Amino acid sequence: MKILLANPNTSQSVTDRIAAVARGNASNGTEIIAVTAKVGVPYIATRADAAIGSRVTLELLADHHTGCNAAIVGAFGDPGLGGARELLSIPVVGLAEAAMLTACMLGRRFSIVTFSHSLGPWYRECVEYHGLTSRLASIRMLEGTFRDIGNVQEEKEALLVELCSRAVREDEADVIVLGGAPLAGLAEQVADRVPVPLVDGVAAAVRQAETLAALRPRKATAGTFRQPAAKQIIGVPASLAQLFGDGNA
Amino acid sequence: MKILLANPNTSQSVTDRIAAVARGNASNGTEIIAVTAKVGVPYIATRADAAIGSRVTLELLADHHTGCNAAIVGAFGDPGLGGARELLSIPVVGLAEAAMLTACMLGRRFSIVTFSHSLGPWYRECVEYHGLTSRLASIRMLEGTFRDIGNVQEEKEALLVELCSRAVREDEADVIVLGGAPLAGLAEQVADRVPVPLVDGVAAAVRQAETLAALRPRKATAGTFRQPAAKQIIGVPASLAQLFGDGNA
Amino acid sequence: MKILLANPNTSQSVTDRIAAVARGNASNGTEIIAVTAKVGVPYIATRADAAIGSRVTLELLADHHTGCNAAIVGAFGDPGLGGARELLSIPVVGLAEAAMLTACMLGRRFSIVTFSHSLGPWYRECVEYHGLTSRLASIRMLEGTFRDIGNVQEEKEALLVELCSRAVREDEADVIVLGGAPLAGLAEQVADRVPVPLVDGVAAAVRQAETLAALRPRKATAGTFRQPAAKQIIGVPASLAQLFGDGNA
Amino acid sequence: MKILLANPNTSQSVTDRIAAVARGNASNGTEIIAVTAKVGVPYIATRADAAIGSRVTLELLADHHTGCNAAIVGAFGDPGLGGARELLSIPVVGLAEAAMLTACMLGRRFSIVTFSHSLGPWYRECVEYHGLTSRLASIRMLEGTFRDIGNVQEEKEALLVELCSRAVREDEADVIVLGGAPLAGLAEQVADRVPVPLVDGVAAAVRQAETLAALRPRKATAGTFRQPAAKQIIGVPASLAQLFGDGNA
Amino acid sequence: MKILLANPNTSQSVTDRIAAVARGNASNGTEIIAVTAKVGVPYIATRADAAIGSRVTLELLADHHTGCNAAIVGAFGDPGLGGARELLSIPVVGLAEAAMLTACMLGRRFSIVTFSHSLGPWYRECVEYHGLTSRLASIRMLEGTFRDIGNVQEEKEALLVELCSRAVREDEADVIVLGGAPLAGLAEQVADRVPVPLVDGVAAAVRQAETLAALRPRKATAGTFRQPAAKQIIGVPASLAQLFGDGNA
Amino acid sequence: MKILLANPNTSQSVTDRIAAVARGNASNGTEIIAVTAKVGVPYIATRADAAIGSRVTLELLADHHTGCNAAIVGAFGDPGLGGARELLSIPVVGLAEAAMLTACMLGRRFSIVTFSHSLGPWYRECVEYHGLTSRLASIRMLEGTFRDIGNVQEEKEALLVELCSRAVREDEADVIVLGGAPLAGLAEQVADRVPVPLVDGVAAAVRQAETLAALRPRKATAGTFRQPAAKQIIGVPASLAQLFGDGNA
Repeated sequence: MKILLANPNTSQSVTDRIAAVARGNASNGTEIIAVTAKVGVPYIATRADAAIGSRVTLELLADHHTGCNAAIVGAFGDPGLGGARELLSIPVVGLAEAAMLTACMLGRRFSIVTFSHSLGPWYRECVEYHGLTSRLASIRMLEGTFRDIGNVQEEKEALLVELCSRAVREDEADVIVLGGAPLAGLAEQVADRVPVPLVDGVAAAVRQAETLAALRPRKATAGTFRQPAAKQIIGVPASLAQLFGDGNA
Repeated sequence: MKILLANPNTSQSVTDRIAAVARGNASNGTEIIAVTAKVGVPYIATRADAAIGSRVTLELLADHHTGCNAAIVGAFGDPGLGGARELLSIPVVGLAEAAMLTACMLGRRFSIVTFSHSLGPWYRECVEYHGLTSRLASIRMLEGTFRDIGNVQEEKEALLVELCSRAVREDEADVIVLGGAPLAGLAEQVADRVPVPLVDGVAAAVRQAETLAALRPRKATAGTFRQPAAKQIIGVPASLAQLFGDGNA
Repeated sequence: MKILLANPNTSQSVTDRIAAVARGNASNGTEIIAVTAKVGVPYIATRADAAIGSRVTLELLADHHTGCNAAIVGAFGDPGLGGARELLSIPVVGLAEAAMLTACMLGRRFSIVTFSHSLGPWYRECVEYHGLTSRLASIRMLEGTFRDIGNVQEEKEALLVELCSRAVREDEADVIVLGGAPLAGLAEQVADRVPVPLVDGVAAAVRQAETLAALRPRKATAGTFRQPAAKQIIGVPASLAQLFGDGNA
Repeated sequence: MKILLANPNTSQSVTDRIAAVARGNASNGTEIIAVTAKVGVPYIATRADAAIGSRVTLELLADHHTGCNAAIVGAFGDPGLGGARELLSIPVVGLAEAAMLTACMLGRRFSIVTFSHSLGPWYRECVEYHGLTSRLASIRMLEGTFRDIGNVQEEKEALLVELCSRAVREDEADVIVLGGAPLAGLAEQVADRVPVPLVDGVAAAVRQAETLAALRPRKATAGTFRQPAAKQIIGVPASLAQLFGDGNA
Repeated sequence: MKILLANPNTSQSVTDRIAAVARGNASNGTEIIAVTAKVGVPYIATRADAAIGSRVTLELLADHHTGCNAAIVGAFGDPGLGGARELLSIPVVGLAEAAMLTACMLGRRFSIVTFSHSLGPWYRECVEYHGLTSRLASIRMLEGTFRDIGNVQEEKEALLVELCSRAVREDEADVIVLGGAPLAGLAEQVADRVPVPLVDGVAAAVRQAETLAALRPRKATAGTFRQPAAKQIIGVPASLAQLFGDGNA
Repeated sequence: MKILLANPNTSQSVTDRIAAVARGNASNGTEIIAVTAKVGVPYIATRADAAIGSRVTLELLADHHTGCNAAIVGAFGDPGLGGARELLSIPVVGLAEAAMLTACMLGRRFSIVTFSHSLGPWYRECVEYHGLTSRLASIRMLEGTFRDIGNVQEEKEALLVELCSRAVREDEADVIVLGGAPLAGLAEQVADRVPVPLVDGVAAAVRQAETLAALRPRKATAGTFRQPAAKQIIGVPASLAQLFGDGNA
């Protein structure tokens, strides 16, 4: 099985990290195709970043989905997920979606713990979008700045563990989702220092992508995720125009 | 990996069916341990049945979980799921829970289609319990009676397909969950006759159980799914009393 | 009028206490038939306990409802309430349900105050089940252990009063529900030390059971609380099997 | 026990009817003091009518509450209920509130059936105000006009029964609330023609008022139903000004 | 364009203040007709006050709406708004409604900051009535008393600014609504001391009233804001009786 | 006052239409700067289209906002609105947002009526995003195809009027929002054929943009719409990169 892991951020170091975690958590025989955005920002943190990132996701999927059995939107917050699910015939899952739904099977209420205060608003809108507000205990974010997005988890490890513990103690979380692709792999490192299950978004996403691929769901020909009618589109790469069904592209 | 599939109904024919579907959808190397209730009703259809079934689930898990990596509550509606998640150290997932959360990754709104009108109220309470009402398009149930719970899916196949199509057309469902253990395997049979993805509860549950086991979440020592304090319990089988910690109390 | 007060816990001391409070709050001419579980745990505190308790409730009602005008599920959290309402022709009400609905007529938002931290998750699910989350100010629970379930209210009286006051001051509660059968009677003792109305679950339940009996509602023959179709049931006491219609099946 | 039944409508015929039903459903020893508005409309049907009626309720209570143990706002929709609960030291309950909360103990979802299409919007806002939307199956209203508010239930009996049955069949109601004071007493007349329990607002309210009075809740001195600070008020009857504390201000 | 600004409070000083703010924020050519209640309380703070004020609003509109293009209910909390919208053919908007909807265009979540603790419960019910609870960050109220409703904003300015800042910092508000007619004009004074946009209820209302008037919406002849059928009404001023369509008044 | 009307669709005919309606509804002295997307699709109808359109919106605003007092996202569904509100210092409003919030002041529940079935899912997500689901009566969409997006309102006028009437009659809408920029101006044409107020998205948006500009809200320096920290961005036009603060990063 081949799974496309599309990082809509421009940080190669983050792609490397999430690819490694994806490979470490994939089943035998699953191949991870990891690609990095050539357009956009180093990491998506705001609504404005996500507005850019949602198109980036579609471009990456257009370029690389052929031959894959499923695809992952490799940014927590899932930019472009709904559109990707319309355009592609293979299953697509987002990091946040996969992590939150997996968390729902491990506890009643989950908290999202992340490394930057700027991520909160976008994450909150993501939880609301997925209709999971009643399952959310809290979103906990570190204050202050960090040195390097590629190593933020090592730099902030102790603070993040403390934040997880506070979410359990003060917000009554049964399970913690470590939010943000740059935190991929951290769950495994610190599992024994937090008293509830931790969910790694990348690990959850790769397993959920495998699950969806294994179930071989048909592409909808009705409902809101049927392939949209072909339409003309201007100013986007040819591969993406083709996904939109543009024959003039 | 060993997964316990506990059918809290007394119908061996249903156990045989769900075990076959579970094995057909499991990864290589996964062993399915299927067990049938010795106490209770042929199939759980009402709140009263579920009140009986929730204890049956705990008894089956108490007797058979040792050596397993994860467990499945093998009745759509998930009787006893919350309690099982407290008592056991391995992950536990319910058919309805697994099916609905999987459906959330395949569409915006799902309908549940099932074979008996009597199942509706219990299923609705199950959707509410999981906090997924905003993702539910409808619950569609066949009217009338059926001959044999072990073969209801063959007897009613055409009517069930029609009900799926109506859920898509009239209720705006993006994806259909076929509800009820006796419908296990039907999704595969009729996938090309329904215009949206179908989710089979058993197939989804076995994959989700594998996913949870693969992620190796720690047993909570805090939060609402920590192991409850040991307590005395009277009038239940010794294996279940042991799960409650009786004897250590 | 005869009202069955079924305690699904095995603590006779708790039954004695709630029976006394029920008799003290009943109208002239109301007889309270109080019965204690022979199966289960000393007090129901977790989802696992409730899974056992829900069947216990049905067994107690099966054995004792004949000749009664209404029945009370005598544990806060209402294990087995929905099933009991399906199976019986007389009205059935739960301690938590009665207390919360009564509280709604005394204020806009209520807090539940109880004696053990372990009760919180189950109570929260109970509030959600009854659809009353928007009326809930908070659930406040004592930390720490207690000596004897039969006397926990005397042991913890001062701490419980303080917890009530904090719920008013910090959580903006208009009214306090004292949760848990072991706290029956406490409301009357401490009413003048808490600045808002207190609701005693047992007192509320006995009055609500009288109200329902007085209104003489018909047993539903349609809707989701109609008597379920008779079905075979294995491994339960004969009186309960009869309620399920076994023998006629 | 004395219960004040305050009809904020000007129809004496409706007062006579609800007083008779109240007396027929009250416990032995309960005295019903029924009073009729001297200001306002024959029956409250719209938001504008309710804006008038809410002050009428306060005036009636100001004039007649002395010596009573509890009071009932005798119009379905409960105009002025919140204000009355602030100003008075005795419990106050509304017809709609009492009927809906009682219905919640008889089924999962209730429908409100009433005699005039104009009542729907106000009733819907009333359900929302009480936070019970998740328990509402539907509001069903007769189309067309009627001859006399004092006899509308006799004139429309067959149509109302049919509407109840449709609410059960099409809207999945478990229980029916007959809405509107002019329908008081109808539930008893037609109970055997509707397949689920019927709730009479007046019968429910008189029993709930008795329940609240029997529980002897203290007047809040904190929370949002404490007695408001005394204030000057102009242009209202002296008895009402006194309730506002004018003169002491 | 003429806009009626109806203050349902009896404080002329407040009317003067809100009239000045309305004029300062109105478009060129808009005339503000400001009127003060002759009946009621100096400022509406509780549910009981609002029950009086809702009729006062209707009386003021009945007396003064002729020739106006739109009307404003000049008390935060919007007493009588729904009824006014039924009875009048011109648009009517409330201070709270206008402020909150305007705030929704300036941020994701708003806090309401006001000068008296007694206002909280009524404001909360107002937010719920408008269906905007999911957009509310918090309601923040000053503790303690004030000297003069006409100058409370000057007296409490520093404390109110601090409260705004806390709402941003602790409650994650994106925008602040200054609640209560007596705070009209404060937003402009303190805008540079609060780090998010401030919404002045009167300024928002006058602009929204202009907007509604400019859009020239037709009076509904269907739906729940159609003109109610004419009905007899007793004991209200002739102008109000006429609005109710009473020809006998 | 200058208002930027940014059409994130590539149809010049639609821009011409909405510009004309905007000018017809603007106050004296307001200048409308209307611009059309050079990238993207003829009209945004799906989640995938919106993922493209959200970046297009940001590009148009980056190119044209200088010197404007407010901006309008000129597509119903508001692609890119949240990001725009972060990046710009002037107020930004969306067509759907403005129309829905305006509708809330004209009735309790609104329906959205539009010309193409494909628009429904995106519009529903837009309503949910703005937290207005409880105010939504229905979304009604024409079936079938149309000839020319520039003239769809003339082609389908009679059918759209019929759909509006059905929304009032069957869905209990108090007010109708005509959804989709191509329907701009239709409300005025057909107002006398629909029995409730109609809201034109463009007319509402231009008035709301004027309102926001007139209120002169400060740019947030805290909360979730503060200017994001400057960051590097690759592969976007220089004007947009500048908005992201690139160059200063």
